[in-house]
Amino acid sequence: MKVAVMTGIDKMGFVEREIPKVADNEVLVKLEYVGICGSDLHYYETGRIGDYIVEPPFVLGHEPGGIVVEIGKNVTNLKVGDKVALEPGKTCGHCEFCKTGKYNLCPDVVFFATPPVDGVFQEYVAHEADLCFKLPDNVSTLEGALIEPLAVGFHAANQGGAHAGQSAVITGAGCIGLVTMLALKAMGLTEIYVVDIMQNRLEKARELGATAVINGKEKDVVKEVLELTRGAGCDLVFETAGTEITTQQAVSMTKRGATIVLVGYSKSGVVNVPLSLAMDKELTFKTVFRYRHIYPTAIKAVASGKVNLKGIVTNVFDFNDIQNAMDSSSRKKAEIVKAVIKM
Amino acid sequence: MKVAVMTGIDKMGFVEREIPKVADNEVLVKLEYVGICGSDLHYYETGRIGDYIVEPPFVLGHEPGGIVVEIGKNVTNLKVGDKVALEPGKTCGHCEFCKTGKYNLCPDVVFFATPPVDGVFQEYVAHEADLCFKLPDNVSTLEGALIEPLAVGFHAANQGGAHAGQSAVITGAGCIGLVTMLALKAMGLTEIYVVDIMQNRLEKARELGATAVINGKEKDVVKEVLELTRGAGCDLVFETAGTEITTQQAVSMTKRGATIVLVGYSKSGVVNVPLSLAMDKELTFKTVFRYRHIYPTAIKAVASGKVNLKGIVTNVFDFNDIQNAMDSSSRKKAEIVKAVIKM
Amino acid sequence: MKVAVMTGIDKMGFVEREIPKVADNEVLVKLEYVGICGSDLHYYETGRIGDYIVEPPFVLGHEPGGIVVEIGKNVTNLKVGDKVALEPGKTCGHCEFCKTGKYNLCPDVVFFATPPVDGVFQEYVAHEADLCFKLPDNVSTLEGALIEPLAVGFHAANQGGAHAGQSAVITGAGCIGLVTMLALKAMGLTEIYVVDIMQNRLEKARELGATAVINGKEKDVVKEVLELTRGAGCDLVFETAGTEITTQQAVSMTKRGATIVLVGYSKSGVVNVPLSLAMDKELTFKTVFRYRHIYPTAIKAVASGKVNLKGIVTNVFDFNDIQNAMDSSSRKKAEIVKAVIKM
Amino acid sequence: MKVAVMTGIDKMGFVEREIPKVADNEVLVKLEYVGICGSDLHYYETGRIGDYIVEPPFVLGHEPGGIVVEIGKNVTNLKVGDKVALEPGKTCGHCEFCKTGKYNLCPDVVFFATPPVDGVFQEYVAHEADLCFKLPDNVSTLEGALIEPLAVGFHAANQGGAHAGQSAVITGAGCIGLVTMLALKAMGLTEIYVVDIMQNRLEKARELGATAVINGKEKDVVKEVLELTRGAGCDLVFETAGTEITTQQAVSMTKRGATIVLVGYSKSGVVNVPLSLAMDKELTFKTVFRYRHIYPTAIKAVASGKVNLKGIVTNVFDFNDIQNAMDSSSRKKAEIVKAVIKM
Repeated sequence: MKVAVMTGIDKMGFVEREIPKVADNEVLVKLEYVGICGSDLHYYETGRIGDYIVEPPFVLGHEPGGIVVEIGKNVTNLKVGDKVALEPGKTCGHCEFCKTGKYNLCPDVVFFATPPVDGVFQEYVAHEADLCFKLPDNVSTLEGALIEPLAVGFHAANQGGAHAGQSAVITGAGCIGLVTMLALKAMGLTEIYVVDIMQNRLEKARELGATAVINGKEKDVVKEVLELTRGAGCDLVFETAGTEITTQQAVSMTKRGATIVLVGYSKSGVVNVPLSLAMDKELTFKTVFRYRHIYPTAIKAVASGKVNLKGIVTNVFDFNDIQNAMDSSSRKKAEIVKAVIKM
Repeated sequence: MKVAVMTGIDKMGFVEREIPKVADNEVLVKLEYVGICGSDLHYYETGRIGDYIVEPPFVLGHEPGGIVVEIGKNVTNLKVGDKVALEPGKTCGHCEFCKTGKYNLCPDVVFFATPPVDGVFQEYVAHEADLCFKLPDNVSTLEGALIEPLAVGFHAANQGGAHAGQSAVITGAGCIGLVTMLALKAMGLTEIYVVDIMQNRLEKARELGATAVINGKEKDVVKEVLELTRGAGCDLVFETAGTEITTQQAVSMTKRGATIVLVGYSKSGVVNVPLSLAMDKELTFKTVFRYRHIYPTAIKAVASGKVNLKGIVTNVFDFNDIQNAMDSSSRKKAEIVKAVIKM
Repeated sequence: MKVAVMTGIDKMGFVEREIPKVADNEVLVKLEYVGICGSDLHYYETGRIGDYIVEPPFVLGHEPGGIVVEIGKNVTNLKVGDKVALEPGKTCGHCEFCKTGKYNLCPDVVFFATPPVDGVFQEYVAHEADLCFKLPDNVSTLEGALIEPLAVGFHAANQGGAHAGQSAVITGAGCIGLVTMLALKAMGLTEIYVVDIMQNRLEKARELGATAVINGKEKDVVKEVLELTRGAGCDLVFETAGTEITTQQAVSMTKRGATIVLVGYSKSGVVNVPLSLAMDKELTFKTVFRYRHIYPTAIKAVASGKVNLKGIVTNVFDFNDIQNAMDSSSRKKAEIVKAVIKM
Repeated sequence: MKVAVMTGIDKMGFVEREIPKVADNEVLVKLEYVGICGSDLHYYETGRIGDYIVEPPFVLGHEPGGIVVEIGKNVTNLKVGDKVALEPGKTCGHCEFCKTGKYNLCPDVVFFATPPVDGVFQEYVAHEADLCFKLPDNVSTLEGALIEPLAVGFHAANQGGAHAGQSAVITGAGCIGLVTMLALKAMGLTEIYVVDIMQNRLEKARELGATAVINGKEKDVVKEVLELTRGAGCDLVFETAGTEITTQQAVSMTKRGATIVLVGYSKSGVVNVPLSLAMDKELTFKTVFRYRHIYPTAIKAVASGKVNLKGIVTNVFDFNDIQNAMDSSSRKKAEIVKAVIKM
């Protein structure tokens, strides 16, 4: 099978490898679409994220949708021909975190495209059947590929304890900001304000259903949010921009007792936070690391029509064109909200 | 002003009374619509509910929507001309239950149409401004009157911890069953099965968005639910029928770890529950007594179009026709899902 | 090694078997103490519990404490010579219940002494190292054996959301009632009333720290609880007696908004519950099926001296005397609160 | 009656005022002990905290214990002669925060010794009976005065979701650090490490029951905590020191999924927080503003002997000596952990 590999910084190539064998509890999936994530681009541009360092040749990609073409002998939940979305992390099932249901914190997780574990920019992958979630007839494998980022949006919403009746602000209208908005809408929130400094991203947010959008270059964000919420401040902020200014705005524009969910990583890793003001308001800060047991919910939300997941895709590239796909996604971040590879 | 009073069992009449004076923290509301609730009918038919005994003349009605016509001098949240929905219970604000946010359990609550406190089948009422919730332009006072039952539906959903991705069964498709369905849909649930034995009620449920309906006279309810949930059983049951058989079915058709929310009162007050089976599955039973801090959420859900609240109304009667309204509602329970009085 | 087997109803015998081999992720434990549980006695007396039917020869016993004598090659958390308490259920780690942290509901659990899985009335057992919890120096293997029932007590307390400041009533002062009391005390509750109809059990409860005890044969239990709680009713009830009368009393003696935790199975499996009263008070009913991720907490509580676990043991029998141990425990339930086998 | 007033920065004086009249829902309390809080000292030293500015003459003091000497005509929960602890904040009972049980966030609160509301360094005070909590016979009015800071400790513990089995670190061993430790112990935690840079405070912490103490001047705090928790990191941190370094240490020394509770205000109000590391671990940050519905729990914990509240008091001053009391408390912060005025 054909496998796209990162051969160095800003360099992609192709190799041929054996189609993987399925273990008894696995299925073999022919991949149809794989999304390009911000972390793929970060590895591509710099060769590392924190302590995770790429050793070329390395396979990127961890947002896969495809079709089951073979099943292991113990597999009962899937059959050949099923469309599936693949959850990319295999966990141990027995540590403290797995046992208490927080498997996303399992220290022994094996996660696609996190060095040294290869990802899925390739034609086939063998994966645990329990991590392959069947898509209903009316959900495509393109949408299947996007279940992974949507899962982050749902997990962020869950971490915030989001529920109908609340007002929410999302700072940052990139892919993660948008999927968070979609998840919040699917969970019944009807008052969602989106903040960014790029107008085309704000248009996208408005198109996908934001109650109102705020351009942080043109407006005083805190003042706008206070006005939109009739002076009350918002119940929830989802900070996906990863900047100090938006983190500080978050503290100022929330209502007492509110929750701020930190989703976006900042460049330096350290942020000046106005903690005294946060304490006066008794705010809660939650953080997000991947997601847990959320694929079935995300798929149901798409199947029901509550989430317009295709709407976030701005570019589809052919598998053979992957060098261009990575380069374009890397250079035109303002334009390309979400790119997907058609395998 | 004109006031409709219950003068005896199955007897309504009219009296003239002074328009009430507003206290400093109150508003005077000209009522436009008041819903007829099952408890109104129960008082009308039998003169009592438990220890609450009607002393005629008594004013029924606790589901009011109207227009503010005068405001007390300390009122800042409302102005003359505002459309409002009225939350019917004034609580003490200082007991253990009020202080911990469970004000619906306040032992000193003063609640419309709960003897000896009069209700609102009358032209005007003075009420605490904090309990009068402004309706947006696109929400009518007819819908305002129905916020009260919808609040029960939302509280039931909250008690069950309902959230996107879950499967729910509602047993009983009367008014409370339907508003529970509407609340669940507004909270993002997309898999909701409704059970009843009256086909016209099931049609109503289907029309308002049930995923599937089950006629308990024609089908084995437990078997149907297990099939519909692919053998898993459902995550939630909302028991609004108040019968022993549906309570027992609830225990059988849930998944392990599920929650059953008891909303409907049974005739005898005592129900045979298969507790050993419930313990084997580690089920939770929650119960519902009125609702708490849910009006703003319910109003938002209606304003956003997520809840088709008008859809539950089957009959609108004129205020002058209230004797007929009560009699018809009492006699034709299968036909009249929800009746409202136009004041 | 020597293995005690149930050879028929009310009949024990001994057989010799091979000492088990340890798998890579297992340890071999030389058992020192194994408790006799009510379920062991139920199998012994009737040959079955629900659908679980004993096929003799069958090994009972699932409350083991012992010493590690051999470790599998992948084991890192234990070493030879460690004292351990063994959690008896191996779960799949991959189903919906395991993934969400409710592994006690795993449908594929393999649990000691639940037919057809043998228990541990035998000299040695090989068990997953992750399920063997090291005991500190100041905790004996006798206490180690009793961690299993104590885990039920802690799980019951957790299911009830028990916390400092609450008042609790425990109906039934058998082993499970007592360990629930010990768990509640360890969690900071200081107002715990224990109800039973056997005076010697009540004396035991008092000796182990009950705030007050109530003999249900001599007193009006509901009236007593209301008096002891200054008219308020209690915040929590733990129903461990498994009778209809105590379940009904539970509903009457609780405060509005309270939680009743159902722990004891009734004989018929079906109980008449005053649900209307429960709904008027907006009560919650939680149930208990075994326990989850609680061994480390239970061991810490014993090690700190907060739980006098030895205090519940009324009888220690020699392994060779197991027939007598079972017969006595079965016949003298009023006298023998908790019996343990010294292996 | 005699009233101590702050007449300027670092200046106390006395005036005579009328003994207050009791309203119908109030009681008159003859104060016996009033604690000196850090916020009292801050007003005394600088004349302000944030936007709250002292206009002399101003009465400080908000930690009162005393005896009821007169009751309003509607008071039923207290009688003359009762010892009481007074919760210092009267809330509106009707805003969003009061209704949802978060009354500590009520914007209309009237709180002792928060300008312009006078405090209680005076012989008598009239206060809402609902905010005066009766002390049992075995709890003194000195302890009654200390219920206020203990309430902060319990609220911090509650905000952290603290429960038996967890390991906790407290950074800062001043009064609030110590009461947090006492609250955690009362809630069943048995593994509590206390960090400070003043040895005498650490000795106090050890004396009151810390599992171990760490002097941050002498040891690498993060390394020590990791060793003490066997490499795992702690489940909870309570940051009461209000410094950047301890906030940063908190992020490093916690386990994945842990909660950090921010209690201490920093001087600048803004803190550099390593948010990327916090996100990698999916940490939660909770904050603390005063407390809510916790006095009965705190009093029960003291009455049961679980909390040695007197143990935190290092100095008792006579009311006439209040100038010296304030000056000493202000100058010798290392020595005086907690001072109380005997009225």
